[in-house]
Amino acid sequence: MTKTPRDPHFEARVRDSFARQRAMATLGITMGRVVPGEVDLEVPYREDLTQQHGFLHAGVIATMADSACGYAAFSLMAADVGVLSVEFKINLLAPARGQRFVARARVLRAGRTLSVCAADVVAVDGTQETAIAALQATIMAIAGRADVQH
Amino acid sequence: MTKTPRDPHFEARVRDSFARQRAMATLGITMGRVVPGEVDLEVPYREDLTQQHGFLHAGVIATMADSACGYAAFSLMAADVGVLSVEFKINLLAPARGQRFVARARVLRAGRTLSVCAADVVAVDGTQETAIAALQATIMAIAGRADVQH
Amino acid sequence: MTKTPRDPHFEARVRDSFARQRAMATLGITMGRVVPGEVDLEVPYREDLTQQHGFLHAGVIATMADSACGYAAFSLMAADVGVLSVEFKINLLAPARGQRFVARARVLRAGRTLSVCAADVVAVDGTQETAIAALQATIMAIAGRADVQH
Amino acid sequence: MTKTPRDPHFEARVRDSFARQRAMATLGITMGRVVPGEVDLEVPYREDLTQQHGFLHAGVIATMADSACGYAAFSLMAADVGVLSVEFKINLLAPARGQRFVARARVLRAGRTLSVCAADVVAVDGTQETAIAALQATIMAIAGRADVQH
Repeated sequence: MTKTPRDPHFEARVRDSFARQRAMATLGITMGRVVPGEVDLEVPYREDLTQQHGFLHAGVIATMADSACGYAAFSLMAADVGVLSVEFKINLLAPARGQRFVARARVLRAGRTLSVCAADVVAVDGTQETAIAALQATIMAIAGRADVQH
Repeated sequence: MTKTPRDPHFEARVRDSFARQRAMATLGITMGRVVPGEVDLEVPYREDLTQQHGFLHAGVIATMADSACGYAAFSLMAADVGVLSVEFKINLLAPARGQRFVARARVLRAGRTLSVCAADVVAVDGTQETAIAALQATIMAIAGRADVQH
Repeated sequence: MTKTPRDPHFEARVRDSFARQRAMATLGITMGRVVPGEVDLEVPYREDLTQQHGFLHAGVIATMADSACGYAAFSLMAADVGVLSVEFKINLLAPARGQRFVARARVLRAGRTLSVCAADVVAVDGTQETAIAALQATIMAIAGRADVQH
Repeated sequence: MTKTPRDPHFEARVRDSFARQRAMATLGITMGRVVPGEVDLEVPYREDLTQQHGFLHAGVIATMADSACGYAAFSLMAADVGVLSVEFKINLLAPARGQRFVARARVLRAGRTLSVCAADVVAVDGTQETAIAALQATIMAIAGRADVQH
């Protein structure tokens, strides 16, 4: 697997695309580190995103981890393609309890059409990190479709 | 697999628990049909929940489908347990384009500790339905833990 | 989703390809029903394929269900492509106890490049069937590669 | 997550249980390294375990990786429980081409009832290793059931 980006402007392209994801702003998810094949996203604890026991909803964790995977794959792709998630799978290791939550995604396989990524999600409380989820995703590069760009 | 609920008041218990999921209100997800072992959830299209191409974010679809599975399992459980998602897997069959989206979950296996559920998600446009996602989830019954009730 | 096969000779093509899967013969897996978008595979109980408790190994069940999905997808594809599994996920609903085991696969989405399939696996004991597994798989059509044909 | 085994004789218990998996001998899968929370399994290339293009069948890779995960979890469990796979998910990164294949499993979360494990599978050709699969699995500890021991 090469970690050399096909597009030297990959970081701007990743951050621009992320900024167009309206759901990220609504959920309060922000982008951290972006390097070729690796992207971090982060979300603070918010009471209005909890499930019935007061933990952050597993779906919000999955949304963040899936997006981190999509952008990790996107960072290695050519400048003229868009990406869509094909599928993802998440194991929830512990309830999402903490001040904030960080998803760290990395590309396991960077293919021309399909990429496979993994993300680890941790809960952060003060200086302590607890692993709360592990996600694996398949991301597809889409070229030449007007409705799926960047 | 029995579809006889252990708790005759299963529907009230399901709807009460759902009403305490703050994330559902924030995302605009509402509960439809509740029968033993089957629960439907629904969300309208909302621009502020889209991904970069203007489709509803796959994470929102996954959040809804996972919650539908959790409540399908919960509907068959005893009155004194809570539920947590152990894991789920989603295949995205088509971009989430439409006026509204419905997740229909059913229990495949109702175990004492673990239940397995599947959800189909469709996009609805006028009278037309398009399959957009299929999810499989493992849901765990939690008894005797103060932080995981109902 | 159309269930019209692109290749009128789909059944012969499916059965020929299956006959070339050496692993199927070694494991004793045979092909049953083949219709457009649906394929059944079957394996008898065999002591030499058990796990440590004497149940048929979950991996053998997964192998059979994944192959059934691959051929269900293959049945709808053009005559000149080969297929590879991209990923699959299996939930084991009950231990594989019985005289024989049948995987019934169906296509959920038949795409030009990617197809999504689901398989249910049952254990058969006399006239009784018990659901033992549910699998979801992504299958990729491969064209123009000498090492991946049919 | 603690990597301290509950049972000081974990290695003998793991190897004894593996030796009772008849499917492993039939498929030619052998056990390598066993440390607390980590287990390696290995299989040579065998023509009679191939799929239609001559690669080792993905199901055999999945069988090996799932078993490696099961034993990684088992290595951290108490002496009197048995294990069953609840579910697993595998992404196939490249066709299984090589002289031999090694699955390296590690525990991500060691719970009293449920453990979550991940396995990486590589193809080995001479001195070169190629990543061919990544698997995530949920393993359940079973106590007090006569049919599920060790």
